[in-house]
Amino acid sequence: MGKIICTGLGPGNPDLMSVRSDRLIRQASHVAFFRKAGRKGQARAIVDGMLRDDATEHAMEYPVTTELPFDSPEYIAALATFYDDWAAKLTALSQTEDVIVLCEGDPFFYGSFMHLYTRLHSKVEMEIIPGITGMSGCWTATEQPITWGDDVLTVLMATLPQDQLIQHMQTADALVVMKTGRNLPKVRRALAAAGRLEAAWLVEQGTGPNQRIARLADMAETDCPYFAIVLVHGNGRRPELQASA
Amino acid sequence: MGKIICTGLGPGNPDLMSVRSDRLIRQASHVAFFRKAGRKGQARAIVDGMLRDDATEHAMEYPVTTELPFDSPEYIAALATFYDDWAAKLTALSQTEDVIVLCEGDPFFYGSFMHLYTRLHSKVEMEIIPGITGMSGCWTATEQPITWGDDVLTVLMATLPQDQLIQHMQTADALVVMKTGRNLPKVRRALAAAGRLEAAWLVEQGTGPNQRIARLADMAETDCPYFAIVLVHGNGRRPELQASA
Repeated sequence: MGKIICTGLGPGNPDLMSVRSDRLIRQASHVAFFRKAGRKGQARAIVDGMLRDDATEHAMEYPVTTELPFDSPEYIAALATFYDDWAAKLTALSQTEDVIVLCEGDPFFYGSFMHLYTRLHSKVEMEIIPGITGMSGCWTATEQPITWGDDVLTVLMATLPQDQLIQHMQTADALVVMKTGRNLPKVRRALAAAGRLEAAWLVEQGTGPNQRIARLADMAETDCPYFAIVLVHGNGRRPELQASA
Repeated sequence: MGKIICTGLGPGNPDLMSVRSDRLIRQASHVAFFRKAGRKGQARAIVDGMLRDDATEHAMEYPVTTELPFDSPEYIAALATFYDDWAAKLTALSQTEDVIVLCEGDPFFYGSFMHLYTRLHSKVEMEIIPGITGMSGCWTATEQPITWGDDVLTVLMATLPQDQLIQHMQTADALVVMKTGRNLPKVRRALAAAGRLEAAWLVEQGTGPNQRIARLADMAETDCPYFAIVLVHGNGRRPELQASA
């Protein structure tokens, strides 16, 4: 009996994955990863040059990506079938050998892997190896601490309605906004409404070879990179200010 | 000319530090780390067995810990002098050799290192290596994703006033509460007021050898472990619910 091991890959630079993930990936005989049809896949790209020559690769290709709206019944049904099928395939493989699943960042932090995990964890022996998050790679790239002292940090998805974004942007000290892409103009409006736009940074591929860092306010309105995170650093909320409040 | 390299150590298990941190720590000739006077130090303990025999260790011992209130002028002045002195010592060392500073978790995420960083980064060449956060080790230990879908995650320090804790606990989907210790009874009251106590977990030393996981509601009121994180998992806020709202 083998098990299914989900290895967090970290923010993109192979040097930033954990010693344990690195070791298990180099030893693996079965390696599975998600990707868009027709692409190499970001997770697979991170482990380039690390796999055994005789490793069997299992590319889990999403059936649909941008063709259908995320909230359509067709999209939801197609994805459910896709995850069901791969859960069954990985379960079958794990009857005889360990299967390594590659996950960008940290598997339990907004990871696609959780859709497989919910289907598998009561049936198969599993191990989850945490990873450095993509957001951590991004704030390290800005060369400033994201939080210190008593800062409140809130992580937001740019897909949320603008009024909810504004509310959280007004009440947290430090901010991370993910899933930006086409939602970036909305994020920009929300930050401006919350009085945080001037302090916001956009980081693309933090720690990766094509890392890019820009002040969001300085970017062209039409510049909406797909794989980017928006950050607002905390200023180090001081415990003594609360104590005297 | 050397540089000062701050290596994120991750959540506690040496196997979970990055390949880059692992390599640099094993090669280091100068290794600095914070600790309480009279203790071995948590960061130093993580790298046990990894240092070169001829490595020089620099224990940066806090001048005061719990003897003075955190908000007293004496405490603030003593810490400022402590950081000034060590910034000068590390700068002098780095004139000829690289100096490795050990940092638990991720250096830019609530790290003590930032007090040295603000004193050093404009004067000395520095490198920051991110790490897996302690909170990530804790949510991995619970065997459940902390966030998925459009969940909002908020990270709170238990030192905040109770009303502010309640407000954030009511508006975020997933919660991480750090710096618990003697503040744990306040955290418990705030979670109860926000209707989140039943879903809260306390995790001590996630991924470490003495890992402990308990439902907060099941713990004795007097059980206030010092180095623990409180977690409430997100339920996977669905994009389609917002789209129809």
